Formats: sequence, C-alpha cells, structure tokens
Amino acid sequence: MQEDEFKVTPWEVSGKVDYEKLMQQFGTQKISREILEEISDISRQKMHVMLRRNIFFSHRDLDLILKDYREGKGFFLYTGRAPSMGMHIGHLVPFLFTKWLQDIFNVNVYIEITDDEKFMRNQDYTLKQTSEWAYQNILDIIAVGFNPDKTFIFKDTEYIRNMYPLVTAIAKKLNFSQVKSTFGLDVSSNIGILFYPAIQIVPTMFENKRCLIPAAIDQDPYWRLQRDLAESLGYRKAAEIHSKFLPPLASSDGKMSSSIPESAVYLSDPPKTVEKKIMKYAFSGGQATTELQRKLGADLKVDVPYQWLYYIFEDNDDEMERITRDYSKGNMLTGEVKATLARKVNKLLEEHRERREKSKDEFSKFLYDGKLAKHMWEKIHS
Amino acid sequence: MQEDEFKVTPWEVSGKVDYEKLMQQFGTQKISREILEEISDISRQKMHVMLRRNIFFSHRDLDLILKDYREGKGFFLYTGRAPSMGMHIGHLVPFLFTKWLQDIFNVNVYIEITDDEKFMRNQDYTLKQTSEWAYQNILDIIAVGFNPDKTFIFKDTEYIRNMYPLVTAIAKKLNFSQVKSTFGLDVSSNIGILFYPAIQIVPTMFENKRCLIPAAIDQDPYWRLQRDLAESLGYRKAAEIHSKFLPPLASSDGKMSSSIPESAVYLSDPPKTVEKKIMKYAFSGGQATTELQRKLGADLKVDVPYQWLYYIFEDNDDEMERITRDYSKGNMLTGEVKATLARKVNKLLEEHRERREKSKDEFSKFLYDGKLAKHMWEKIHS
Repeated sequence: MQEDEFKVTPWEVSGKVDYEKLMQQFGTQKISREILEEISDISRQKMHVMLRRNIFFSHRDLDLILKDYREGKGFFLYTGRAPSMGMHIGHLVPFLFTKWLQDIFNVNVYIEITDDEKFMRNQDYTLKQTSEWAYQNILDIIAVGFNPDKTFIFKDTEYIRNMYPLVTAIAKKLNFSQVKSTFGLDVSSNIGILFYPAIQIVPTMFENKRCLIPAAIDQDPYWRLQRDLAESLGYRKAAEIHSKFLPPLASSDGKMSSSIPESAVYLSDPPKTVEKKIMKYAFSGGQATTELQRKLGADLKVDVPYQWLYYIFEDNDDEMERITRDYSKGNMLTGEVKATLARKVNKLLEEHRERREKSKDEFSKFLYDGKLAKHMWEKIHS
Repeated sequence: MQEDEFKVTPWEVSGKVDYEKLMQQFGTQKISREILEEISDISRQKMHVMLRRNIFFSHRDLDLILKDYREGKGFFLYTGRAPSMGMHIGHLVPFLFTKWLQDIFNVNVYIEITDDEKFMRNQDYTLKQTSEWAYQNILDIIAVGFNPDKTFIFKDTEYIRNMYPLVTAIAKKLNFSQVKSTFGLDVSSNIGILFYPAIQIVPTMFENKRCLIPAAIDQDPYWRLQRDLAESLGYRKAAEIHSKFLPPLASSDGKMSSSIPESAVYLSDPPKTVEKKIMKYAFSGGQATTELQRKLGADLKVDVPYQWLYYIFEDNDDEMERITRDYSKGNMLTGEVKATLARKVNKLLEEHRERREKSKDEFSKFLYDGKLAKHMWEKIHS
C-alpha cells in the first residue's frame, strides 16, 4: 500500500484515511453548517462534541430526517454492534452519539447485535463465544444510558424469527453479483456471509418512518444496498450520519483493533493499565527530546493522545484550543498531554463501570420487557 | 434436448428419466433384495406397494438405518414440502410412504414446509401467498394420518429462530462455489436462495440419531452437501430413500407440475373433474382403434393410466399382474384401464378429503402442542 492509499470496508480499515476522498467515493454529503444550526435549534443545548469537532462528519438524507421531525412525522435511530471479546473506547463512539440523539429527539433506538455475522465471518469463533461476547457487550451498551422504554437491543440469533419474513423479501432483491461487488466477497465466501446483508438491512424497516443510522462510515456499503431496494418494498431509504474512526493508540492510521491489545483501551482496563498503555504506547507527534519539543512543538496530525482528546475526551472548546496552541507551539510536552488524556479516560471508564454494574438489572428491559422491547417481540416484520 | 436426455434438479425434472443412469450420476445405491427382506421382517406386514413396485428404488445408508434400528439406537424420519397453490396426487407419494415407515418403525417424523424458499425462488409469489398455501398443504399432509405425538410439521418462517444457530453453523461450511455447482445457481441468483440449502439441511440434525429422508430423487443434491459436512459438526450423514417421479397425466416424461393443470390430478378435484382429466388427458399407450388394440395391445412403458395404477393405486399384486397381462395383450382397452384408475383415484381422494376435514382440529397438535411439537419449540438447535 502506498503512503496515500487507504482501505475502508466493513471489516478492514487501513492506511491514513482521507475522509474527503471517502465521501466522494461513497457519494455521501458533508454535514453542512445549516444542518448543524438546525440541530442546535432543536436541541437547545450545547452541540455534542462529536458534531462540534466534526467526528460525525458525513451523512445521507440527514436534512430529510430533520424535515420529517419538524413536520411531526418523526423518525427512528438504528445502530449496532458485531460482538467482540471486549469493547474498547472506539466502540463507544456510535453509542455515545446515538444516546445523545435519542435524548434530543426523544425517539426509538434499535440496536442490532450481530452475533450471527461475527460467528460466520470468522473460522475460529464458535457461536457460544460470540453469544457470550454479545451478553458482555450489551451490558456496556446499556451503561451508555439509553432510554429503556424507547430502546430495543436484540441479538440476531434470538430475534431472527420476527425479522425473517422481511429478511427473505430483502434477500430476494439482492443477488450474488451485487453483494460480491459491494463487499468485496468472492466465490469462496460462505453462504451465511453472502446472505447476511439482508439481516443488517432489516432493522432500517422496523418502523414506517425514516430511519437514521449513526455509525462509522465503514458500514456505508450496507446502506447503499438498502437505499437501492427500500422503496420497492414500500419503505424509505435509510438516512445515515457517518463518523470517522478513532485512531488506534499505537499509530494514527486505520482504526482501533480488538486483535492488537496495545492499540486499544478497553472499557475493562484498570486505571494503571490505562495509564501505562497511554504513556507507553500512544503514538506521539511530539519531538524526541524536551528541548526539541519546546523549540518545534508537536505534529498534531499524527499525535494520538491529542486526537483522542479532540475526538471525545476534552469537551471544553476553550481548553481544547489552549491544548492545541500550547502543544503545537511546544509550550506543552507530550507527557502532559498523555497524563491529561489518561486522567480523562480513567474518569470516563470509572463512571462507565459504575453504570455497567446496574446494567444487569436493566438487561431484560432493553431486550425483552421494556415498553419498546415488548412491542417488538409481538411484531412479525413482513 | 435429445430423446435420451433428461434433467433432474430440485426445481426441474424433464425428459424421460433413466433412473439407472441417475443412480450412477448421483452415486446412490439400488435398494437390494436383502434390505427389502429385512424391512419385511421388521414390519411383519405386507410390503408397501411403493417398495414392491420399486417406486422407492434407490437409497444411501438405508442399511445403516436398519442396523441402528436393530441395535436399539433408533433413527428419525424427515421429509418436506415447498408449498404450492394446490397439492396433486404426485405430492402425496413421499408422505404416504413416510407415514407407512412411521407406522412400521414407530419413530419421529419431521416435516419442513419451505415457505421461505418457495417465496425467494419465484419472483411472482408473495410471502403471504406461500404462507397461505403452506396452511392448505399442511391440512393435506395431516390427512395422510401421521402420529400427532410423534410428528412435527413446521414452517421455516415460523421455526427459524429455533433452527437459526445451527443454520449459521451449516452456512459457515458452504461457500458460493459449492452451492453454485451443486444446484446450478449463478451470480444472478438471489442471496436467499444461495443461503437456503443451510435451512433444508438443518432438520437432518434435529436428533442425535441417524436421519432417514424419504423424498423424490431430485432432492438428492441437498443431501450430498449434508453428507459432506455433517460429521464436522458432530452429526451423522443423512440416509435417504429415493422415489421416482409419478409421471404427469398428459405425458410419460418429466414429473407432474402444478403449473400445467391438466397434467395433474389435484387433491381437491371433484369426481367429475378427475374422470374427465383421466379420460381426456391421460396419455395412453393403447392403440388408435379398438381393433388395433385387441390385436397389438398397449405399450405399457408410455401408458400413464397404467403407470399410475402400478405406482400407487392398484395395491393388489395379482390384480396388477392381470391388468399388465390383459392390457399389454389387447384383452383390455384403454377406456377400461382409465375407468379403473378414475374409480380408484376418486376413492382415495374421497377418503383423503374426509380425513382432511378433521385436519383443522389436529393442526395445532402437529405444529405447536403435540408431544413432539411442544418439545421442539422448547429446543434451540445449535
């Protein structure tokens, strides 16, 4: 791969992603000032840090979502997760943002846990493993603070019966060639993975309203397929709001990966581990020596601790501006930036784990007997 | 297609099928005298007409099924049906025979109703249609007389949740190339149909015993895939007993088709219609005039009324021998053979419809709350 090359698929993100280029390739829209102002108007509170900092940067039909909202037609939110052994900080991004949107708009949220896909995609995993990971991940998702009566979290393997009639209708509209070219699959791909897009598309049709999907931009291929077929089935094209990838700790390229432990901070990492990972592994754009740093300042474009602060952890714009200025000019050292980040990460994780303790008590509400969950179990989608 | 060519796939049977050749192509075994004698020994009753007349003619591992039975390990039966607007006489063949096997061996029977596949295979059908057909077909199947506490009839769209974990495990073992070459699919095939073999294979693993599948030989490709992967998932290779195709009324080639009404006698056809169809459309091997027939006799190899009597309707071997002799020698006329057949078909249909009246009362037993059905709904296959 050449220096300026990058790759973004639902299963692989590598290289230095050029997000402008990606929007062109995928044919998505930049989130405009007008849209941001409208969200600001509606929310009557400070814009979410991920919108202010352009982490959620691209969209399709977000303007139509806002129009439907204004006109009282409403909309609903849908996001999801392929369960993994542990969730890391990067995995929280879509959920933190989706929760904020739920708070602002007071709408239903559907969260699909794709234990089937995770199992079928990876030769080494058993369904027992992906199901156990699903349970653990769901506890983390609940801890984000969704409204239990307006949120339905479901595992594909459990909810399939309710979805299956509509899944077959979607599957009938997609052929091997389309799925192959959209996802880069081939003739050796297993039939479960070939079929799977129908299952990820179904929740976009859970309500007869427009669906808004907050997710990292790598998921966009699914939504392109959805948008091609939705209207022929009597549903609306899904709208999306796309995020960038939180860079992995050890390099400013690609995305954080569960398979390289030192590249990620896990939600279960104890404070000492977090500190050690950040101090030891976080890729720095600072200079090699204190003297040089004082003189030249840091290269913020490759500095991971700086970027993590910017993406998620430093909510205060003035403070962020100060760090940007001081660090880039050499008035701040890498060690200080790392220490600031470690403190903030540990604060978030501590609070997260406190809430996660209570997740077990709320589990059945989100999955089975909360107001929305109950309604969804009574519904067969067709 | 040349005269001696024929085609047998799960969706198309055409030409004059050479069953000997088919056994060679598919790599199946002829049902031997030894096996027939053993079944006779176990059953302690007259051999089923379809075994005596070689309608069920080919198998895989039927010897192992009998061995498992003798050794007390047991086995189970599995067959199925892709729902269609109406069931015809040919559709009854596997069910009549499976019921006989259930009576003889006192084993569980699983009957899969593939409403999903039927819908996904045909652009013109809606899932609502295939579901309604499924209901009507199930009433016909129940009327065959299965043991309600040892038989589970299920629609794929309803039972999918219980099957799905195991479906994903099977799907993971099959890739596009295999499914393509096994079923003659291609890159324009929809992903539902590509995925479907995993769903038809799953019931072969419903019990931790050997499974015997009585079905027409066109379904064999599914079982070949099953036999390649079953052991890697900890299950046994499925055994099969294959039937020939009841020839369509209007020609001795291919198989009866629901899409050519005059080629089939429907289970709902009133007596007058049955008579008319047989008298008017049934392809005769008799001579053009009474005189020629008296002189030359009929060509039994192409005579459909004769073949129907032979396949199903004339259970009495002595009487069948008499008809064979008299009709081939010209002592019997086509009209007499047709009239005999019409009488017997109407008798079977009348009895069938009487039993079908009661099917509605037994419906929920077979699908939901009979002894086996209840057990199956509590079970998640994985």
